[in-house]
Amino acid sequence: MPGLHSTKDIQKNINCSTPAALSTTSPATTLLELQPLMAHPNLPSEHDNSQEDREQPAPTTLQRTRAHFLKGVSYFSGDMKAFGKWMEKQFFLLQLLDWVLRGAAQVMFVNNPLSGLIIFGGLILQNYWWALNGFVGTLFATISALILQQSRGAIAAGLYGYNGILVGLLMAVFSKAGDWYWWLLLPNIFMSMMCPIVSSALASINSRWDLPVFTLPFNILVCLHMVATGHYNHHFPQVLIQPRSELPNITWAEIDVAKLFMSVPVGIGQVYGCDNPWTGGIFIISLFISSPITCAHAVLGSAVGMVSGLALAAPFGDIYFGLWGYNCVLACIAIGGMFYALTWQVHLLAITCAFFCAYLGSAIANIMSTFGLPACTWPFCLSALTFLLLTTGTNRIFKLPLAKVTYPEKNLGFFWKMKKQEKMEKAEKERKEKEEQQKATEEEIILNEKEKLRLELERMEKGIVDSEESEGKNDETLVKDHTQEVEPLDTAGENKRNHVTEVTPADYV
Amino acid sequence: MPGLHSTKDIQKNINCSTPAALSTTSPATTLLELQPLMAHPNLPSEHDNSQEDREQPAPTTLQRTRAHFLKGVSYFSGDMKAFGKWMEKQFFLLQLLDWVLRGAAQVMFVNNPLSGLIIFGGLILQNYWWALNGFVGTLFATISALILQQSRGAIAAGLYGYNGILVGLLMAVFSKAGDWYWWLLLPNIFMSMMCPIVSSALASINSRWDLPVFTLPFNILVCLHMVATGHYNHHFPQVLIQPRSELPNITWAEIDVAKLFMSVPVGIGQVYGCDNPWTGGIFIISLFISSPITCAHAVLGSAVGMVSGLALAAPFGDIYFGLWGYNCVLACIAIGGMFYALTWQVHLLAITCAFFCAYLGSAIANIMSTFGLPACTWPFCLSALTFLLLTTGTNRIFKLPLAKVTYPEKNLGFFWKMKKQEKMEKAEKERKEKEEQQKATEEEIILNEKEKLRLELERMEKGIVDSEESEGKNDETLVKDHTQEVEPLDTAGENKRNHVTEVTPADYV
Amino acid sequence: MPGLHSTKDIQKNINCSTPAALSTTSPATTLLELQPLMAHPNLPSEHDNSQEDREQPAPTTLQRTRAHFLKGVSYFSGDMKAFGKWMEKQFFLLQLLDWVLRGAAQVMFVNNPLSGLIIFGGLILQNYWWALNGFVGTLFATISALILQQSRGAIAAGLYGYNGILVGLLMAVFSKAGDWYWWLLLPNIFMSMMCPIVSSALASINSRWDLPVFTLPFNILVCLHMVATGHYNHHFPQVLIQPRSELPNITWAEIDVAKLFMSVPVGIGQVYGCDNPWTGGIFIISLFISSPITCAHAVLGSAVGMVSGLALAAPFGDIYFGLWGYNCVLACIAIGGMFYALTWQVHLLAITCAFFCAYLGSAIANIMSTFGLPACTWPFCLSALTFLLLTTGTNRIFKLPLAKVTYPEKNLGFFWKMKKQEKMEKAEKERKEKEEQQKATEEEIILNEKEKLRLELERMEKGIVDSEESEGKNDETLVKDHTQEVEPLDTAGENKRNHVTEVTPADYV
Repeated sequence: MPGLHSTKDIQKNINCSTPAALSTTSPATTLLELQPLMAHPNLPSEHDNSQEDREQPAPTTLQRTRAHFLKGVSYFSGDMKAFGKWMEKQFFLLQLLDWVLRGAAQVMFVNNPLSGLIIFGGLILQNYWWALNGFVGTLFATISALILQQSRGAIAAGLYGYNGILVGLLMAVFSKAGDWYWWLLLPNIFMSMMCPIVSSALASINSRWDLPVFTLPFNILVCLHMVATGHYNHHFPQVLIQPRSELPNITWAEIDVAKLFMSVPVGIGQVYGCDNPWTGGIFIISLFISSPITCAHAVLGSAVGMVSGLALAAPFGDIYFGLWGYNCVLACIAIGGMFYALTWQVHLLAITCAFFCAYLGSAIANIMSTFGLPACTWPFCLSALTFLLLTTGTNRIFKLPLAKVTYPEKNLGFFWKMKKQEKMEKAEKERKEKEEQQKATEEEIILNEKEKLRLELERMEKGIVDSEESEGKNDETLVKDHTQEVEPLDTAGENKRNHVTEVTPADYV
Repeated sequence: MPGLHSTKDIQKNINCSTPAALSTTSPATTLLELQPLMAHPNLPSEHDNSQEDREQPAPTTLQRTRAHFLKGVSYFSGDMKAFGKWMEKQFFLLQLLDWVLRGAAQVMFVNNPLSGLIIFGGLILQNYWWALNGFVGTLFATISALILQQSRGAIAAGLYGYNGILVGLLMAVFSKAGDWYWWLLLPNIFMSMMCPIVSSALASINSRWDLPVFTLPFNILVCLHMVATGHYNHHFPQVLIQPRSELPNITWAEIDVAKLFMSVPVGIGQVYGCDNPWTGGIFIISLFISSPITCAHAVLGSAVGMVSGLALAAPFGDIYFGLWGYNCVLACIAIGGMFYALTWQVHLLAITCAFFCAYLGSAIANIMSTFGLPACTWPFCLSALTFLLLTTGTNRIFKLPLAKVTYPEKNLGFFWKMKKQEKMEKAEKERKEKEEQQKATEEEIILNEKEKLRLELERMEKGIVDSEESEGKNDETLVKDHTQEVEPLDTAGENKRNHVTEVTPADYV
Repeated sequence: MPGLHSTKDIQKNINCSTPAALSTTSPATTLLELQPLMAHPNLPSEHDNSQEDREQPAPTTLQRTRAHFLKGVSYFSGDMKAFGKWMEKQFFLLQLLDWVLRGAAQVMFVNNPLSGLIIFGGLILQNYWWALNGFVGTLFATISALILQQSRGAIAAGLYGYNGILVGLLMAVFSKAGDWYWWLLLPNIFMSMMCPIVSSALASINSRWDLPVFTLPFNILVCLHMVATGHYNHHFPQVLIQPRSELPNITWAEIDVAKLFMSVPVGIGQVYGCDNPWTGGIFIISLFISSPITCAHAVLGSAVGMVSGLALAAPFGDIYFGLWGYNCVLACIAIGGMFYALTWQVHLLAITCAFFCAYLGSAIANIMSTFGLPACTWPFCLSALTFLLLTTGTNRIFKLPLAKVTYPEKNLGFFWKMKKQEKMEKAEKERKEKEEQQKATEEEIILNEKEKLRLELERMEKGIVDSEESEGKNDETLVKDHTQEVEPLDTAGENKRNHVTEVTPADYV
């Protein structure tokens, strides 16, 4: 769900050209790096993770096995680029299915059709009707993006589908009319088809700050539908949500530790509105397939949300139900490696963001309940946008340009390469400076020797002193003026030296 | 109400220079186009609509009659430019009246004092006190803009007045103190005078995306006044608006078709807060005078709003009262030809926007009622801004630069001219390319002939072959290398040719 | 509180270089101006106010006494630059204390540690616990900014502390748990440490329009905390705030004039959440020390707020409690000389802004109470931002670039210098134009005379025409080239001359 609207096609070119562009300064490294690419031309995506291979010129059997394993893994992990490329030549409906599956996974920032398939499996496990609504939403959001001629690259990455699946799912979840109320598909299709319009409009604004749109279109459209109809509507009634006027007494003895632990996968499931812990577990697996870093941060975020709920004296029921987790999950993924390159500082920032998001989640839930609305993922959007707008003086917190965002592991590769190149450039610069310095000192030594020679000569020849002196003086002042114009920071010593070198030949001709 | 703050003076220049600038490539067309302008120098505005005139060199009697009729129409339709120019030389108070009347019409995006006059007639028919408040609001908003030295062009187009009339009208409409409560004029004048400040501030933000401010200043200021005072205020009490806790049962049998049809003009009247269908009818006439496209979209928008209300199970009373219509009216006008050039795609987009606006209207009305506020025209502003921020890959949805927005018919003329010019430029380019290609082929033919000649000569002279051949080969490879560097896309055939031409002279020298 | 994030270090350079840079065109003025600077090299800041000194070459005793007094005053008034510079070499903890004190004063836009100290005195007078929370908030906000490596210049100016003090204070003020509830320090520290993050994020957005962030981070974070916990929370309960469903009857006889007057200092105290009039009085003194203009506008703003409350029929209790004053105080300071250079027009604008802010304050208080929230300083932020976004045609309303904002007196100095320089440049330009014109006319006269002479000569000598002519031609063409290069807009007169010279040879051939 990186929301790289209208930049994905650029990114495609960049993804292809980056490795070459970044290593132009070191042709030796490039060759080593390209070796496996030449062997398996269909598979460039996962290679950046196996940077340690480069150093050894002749791979051992173990390394070869490992490379083969990584190659195999790369076929279904990451963003499945090879599969995406293969898909481009397939039948249109098959392509559309690929886009829909990627869209389903993009809710968790994962651009991977296999993850999407597993996620749909989890949804079916939860509720058939919800899964159907989610599918319809993704499908029509993607179709609408095609009709509106949005960037084909962004559509193919599922960036127009993820809001659709959330709109479809959550409209079904919050409908009071019960399952299999077929009329619901009408507003579902309308709202899904509005997704690309709202996405495009928000992207026009957010792109000014190089920010993604996240799930803002979903938040806007679902809240729109719910508040426009409301609990008492005759056609599309909504679940009743009311502001809490008092909180139950909390006694720590009552706490159910098993349920508390279960709230971590439930929190991940609640990203799609699912309260089944098994569904949450399936989602964790789908994340792990694509990107272990994403998966780790998802679990961490859910745990942080649970702790925050306890700290702010939330009712245990809400915590068990995963309501404190899902926003933190998304915020923690977004900051922890997705839009920032993962360093220790960024990892801490991601945890801070998750805490902030939990606080914000409670606040927004209370405000929205006044209007009979759920919090949706507003807390995630607002907290993640805040943390992405942050500017710091440290270079350990590096925000990736939106067009280069892919998945945490690859982002990290990009960051490392950039660092390496910077280092090399710096080293090169330093080397040049040193050389120049050395040259300068050598010249000085030669000059000093010349000077000594001259002084000795002067001492020997003491005949034509007067006329020589006056001439020398004039030259000196001239030279000084000249050097001051060009190099105003030159010291007097330098000037003297210049004078000497330039004048010497004239003296003895 | 295009909200072209601080760009109207630029626009003036553009309006004058555009026809010339656009047709510089075709002096013949320009002359034909300028002919009627020369005959009637005061009347350039309506001419763009009569493009079919251009083709015939000698106008028939019918055509001449038609031209005369169009000329007559142009005096009071469109933006009445001739009248505006004539006004510039008049007494200041008369000018101010012109600006106030234009301001009254700009609520509907119409820059036409006659429409403004008719609209004031409709308001008087509705309620004397409201009309007075509207007039005071427009007047003081315009005066405030003069004091703050805002762009004179924008003031003269009524772009500082339309928020004023709405502020004045709606403050009177929502006041619980009843008609002729004279104290109300105090906050009315204060809020009207704040309009240009808020307009200018919002324009500073919106101009970054080349967006108009629409009626946002009115929405902000009226909501401000209403919520600051509230229903229980002793000085300025407001009408009580409360959130609906339940909806009446709707039975389709109860529907009153006559009232349903009447809701279309009532919806147009509600733009100014009027529920009298006759007033709405008068407004329709005033729109038709200036721009039939605007008028058609207004009626269409109101109908879409009514249908949406039925679809979302709204109480019939609200629909009859026009509450579902007025936002859709404005949104449909804004998208359908005013800020986009009208094509079929844009027409469909305008209808989609009207549906979205109706949905949004219901949502915002429910939210605002929590604070005792009406929906004002927030739904229109938000939906129209969203649809104007949309970016698509198709060139059939063309958003006009804000500085060139006038009225749908003229916008369309601008769009057509631009298209024509683009086509001509493209044709010109293609022509040139063809010529070059032809030249190239001709050259090739000549070269081939030369080549043939050379080969024949070679066949005849077979004495000094060996040395010549080796030399020629070397040259050829050299040339090839060179051309590959400079023109890497050159084919082998080209290379051969180059070789031949370059080598030939050397052969025979 | 000018919110010059990430620009303060630039500003430092500017502050140093500005006097020199601005007066480069007039070395005489510069010398006069620099004289006192040379005598007291540590004290450049306050000098700009004593511009009248410059004119007299030899200062009298009175003037010398005055200069000494101003020098003394400058040590603790304004932004205490000399002290700030001296501090840079001190122990880190002492520096931190300086930053904390400046942060405390920056709430009122005052960058002065002495004012900060006095303000802390006032807070202690009000409530020990609140003062402690305020101190903790400022301290941790500053530390967090250091950790996040924000601009050191901005930290040293207290620009990361002022939101912290407000967060700390107001969280204590609105806590229902009573004083000395030590757990409150936990969310206090967390929220204070979030301040720099939110500040930085908002600055990224606002800097696009060269706007400060004001107290928006405080507003966001305190509202966040309050609405996230709420009245019924077991850990961090908040004071109960409910929407008013009716207003008490107001009879003008009941008004207490003494309390009404007292509401002016109370309103200033309420900026920090203090209702003690003595505390408010102490704050007034602290403002006067740094900047009398700020102090005057603070009092004026509080009075405007009180009048607005009476006009809008607010309950007398609210007015006495200063709730109508504090936003107007801040808005009036911000517009009246802080971000605009103080002229009469700006003074009137500041008063208008204060009225608008009072209106907005009532509106926002009513809306926020729906969620159990106080109005905080949202009204001030929104009204001041609106008035800072205003664009006008007059040059009497001059918005200072954010990087040049210091305190009203110095801002005024900057504005005057700029005006002066503009005037001088204009005069210089006019002088040059005049000179050129004069030169041109002189040349013309000379040329005319030459021409006459030449014609006479021609008439006299009619023998050796041919050779003469060719020579004349050469000269002529030279002159022509020269004049065409330099003055391409030359009039027909020139052309005539050229014509004559060009035609002449042809005539006589």
